[in-house]
Amino acid sequence: MTRALDPLPALPVTTPGGSYDIVIGRGALADPRAWLGLPAAQQAVIVSNVAVAPLYAQALQQALAPHYAQVSLLPLPDGEEHKTWETLNLVFDHLLGSGCDRKTVLFALGGGVIGDMTGFAAACYMRGVPFVQVPTTLLAQVDSSVGGKTAINHPRGKNMIGAFHQPQRVVCDLATLDTLPARELAAGLAEVIKYGPIADAAFLDWIEAKLPALLARDEAALAYAIRRSCEIKAWVVGQDERETGLRAILNFGHTFGHAIEAGLGYGQWLHGEAVACGMLMASDLSARLGLVPAAFGERMRALLERSGLPTRAPALGSTRLLELMRVDKKAEGGEIRFVLIEAPGRAVVAPAPDALVREVIECHSEAIAS
Amino acid sequence: MTRALDPLPALPVTTPGGSYDIVIGRGALADPRAWLGLPAAQQAVIVSNVAVAPLYAQALQQALAPHYAQVSLLPLPDGEEHKTWETLNLVFDHLLGSGCDRKTVLFALGGGVIGDMTGFAAACYMRGVPFVQVPTTLLAQVDSSVGGKTAINHPRGKNMIGAFHQPQRVVCDLATLDTLPARELAAGLAEVIKYGPIADAAFLDWIEAKLPALLARDEAALAYAIRRSCEIKAWVVGQDERETGLRAILNFGHTFGHAIEAGLGYGQWLHGEAVACGMLMASDLSARLGLVPAAFGERMRALLERSGLPTRAPALGSTRLLELMRVDKKAEGGEIRFVLIEAPGRAVVAPAPDALVREVIECHSEAIAS
Repeated sequence: MTRALDPLPALPVTTPGGSYDIVIGRGALADPRAWLGLPAAQQAVIVSNVAVAPLYAQALQQALAPHYAQVSLLPLPDGEEHKTWETLNLVFDHLLGSGCDRKTVLFALGGGVIGDMTGFAAACYMRGVPFVQVPTTLLAQVDSSVGGKTAINHPRGKNMIGAFHQPQRVVCDLATLDTLPARELAAGLAEVIKYGPIADAAFLDWIEAKLPALLARDEAALAYAIRRSCEIKAWVVGQDERETGLRAILNFGHTFGHAIEAGLGYGQWLHGEAVACGMLMASDLSARLGLVPAAFGERMRALLERSGLPTRAPALGSTRLLELMRVDKKAEGGEIRFVLIEAPGRAVVAPAPDALVREVIECHSEAIAS
Repeated sequence: MTRALDPLPALPVTTPGGSYDIVIGRGALADPRAWLGLPAAQQAVIVSNVAVAPLYAQALQQALAPHYAQVSLLPLPDGEEHKTWETLNLVFDHLLGSGCDRKTVLFALGGGVIGDMTGFAAACYMRGVPFVQVPTTLLAQVDSSVGGKTAINHPRGKNMIGAFHQPQRVVCDLATLDTLPARELAAGLAEVIKYGPIADAAFLDWIEAKLPALLARDEAALAYAIRRSCEIKAWVVGQDERETGLRAILNFGHTFGHAIEAGLGYGQWLHGEAVACGMLMASDLSARLGLVPAAFGERMRALLERSGLPTRAPALGSTRLLELMRVDKKAEGGEIRFVLIEAPGRAVVAPAPDALVREVIECHSEAIAS
């Protein structure tokens, strides 16, 4: 048996609902091998946004054309502030208007917002159609493409309305990172950095050593960072799909971070920026609780600052942030559960005294103007 | 070991995601035994409508009070025309406004519309919270309470946006049928009748014999009709939760029926009324395809008429109905798949020639005024 082409490198992910591949490579989007073996259907719909579609939609449409009788494109408005029911309804209008049936495959071409919304649309349209993630930001490639979480925001909280719905495949084309603004690259690095403290001390060391290469978009460094991040996330999620225990460690920095995002109004800070600031707060909280030495917080601050990420929250006030954290999905009966670091590579989930949390917030926030 | 009280009669339903009981009995709603062993939570939320809440919400609140620190009530507007995203958002607003967490249990107190919307809200709120069905109409007791289908309507089609989400329990209180308007009782009987032709010839005989008792709301007759309907539905769904094959037979009469509902605008005819008319059309189509003798159609017509159900569709035109059927969830690539009867108690799913479908529609519809 001869094989004309080597298969694309792929990371298999196993979930209770089946398994899928994460394909990682430069040019994957236009590579016919990336699109073999997906569920058959009459129609494919590419859901993207007005910023990404002009760059990559045509290449994806051409790559999908051999597999579907009709491939349509729906460009949505761009930005976290559009991760709403109103935008989601544009997807349903398009699907119903185009006569899409229960086998139609949706392709999410864009960042985390597009992935979350397209995944949720796929979870709900006719009670569930297949979808494929084609993440075009570093953040989406290392985070939202693994784990099956899909959602939209509600004015009272981020990702409050959603579903677990696993993709059929994830295709990460490294070439899409060439056009990513520097601010978004840094926001993606925040989630890459996250995997070190919570699960892999050696990976944290590696990131510190390779940060210049990552910021210079060195292809080999990015490919390894994406692959290792997805491996860690897949390993965690594989043990706890529904976030009853272990999976919660993936929210390191997110309890503070979500509150910052919600307090500022979605779309002001990038998700990764808020998470960066939240990771510093959570590291400091871990230190104040005596779990790690204070030096760990300083190590995190240095890495985040070198990455170009914010380490000071805006002046929202600790009362407001605490209130926002209490309505977070991870809170139970009003008790906030924090992901804390016990040692580089080892996380634990626990509550913390309000007074200490206030101290941490105030220490890492701009002063409120009097 | 002594037991003070006999347990309430319950029908166990097994699904891939776990099993639950359907409790059937007069006074079940106020019976403490009906509410034992549900998931623990700080909060319970009763979602109902403005017609049902004044009748039963207080009794349910009292029955739940021993189990939850807070039991709140949310009465939604009444009617199929409110089975929309806007109404669903009222549920999310209430849940977030009350600080409900991921363990909060939702109770759907009402008919199929409330059950479908509450179930979908439970499926999506924080990516899934538990819910309990407390159906107060015959239709909801025999149909929407089994199978885990939840949904809202879209202007372009019924139940187009939804999820599979199994309840923790279903509690059918026969006393709630006392206040059910006669028109709604008949609409529920349409779904009871459905189970005969598709799965159980003896049950069809039994319904024909017991119809006067059912219409007179005889408690033993209703209890048996509900139990047998749920048994058949649970048996079908247990073999095919996601409707890839066998489950489609439950849609007998629904392909025509959904199109009638959509064509008229939701809320004009009751779902069961449209299904009744649709079952007659599907029976006639089966006869015209040579699957059953024409007498079977006449038998169905007689039973439906005795039940007080409509057997003539409004003048919508066969072109419009065909168009609506083609966007139904069951259609694939524009091909409409009909549930046809091969013999009383045996159904098959198949396409049919457009011309024959048009004949059937026109034969059982009011003439279009020229």
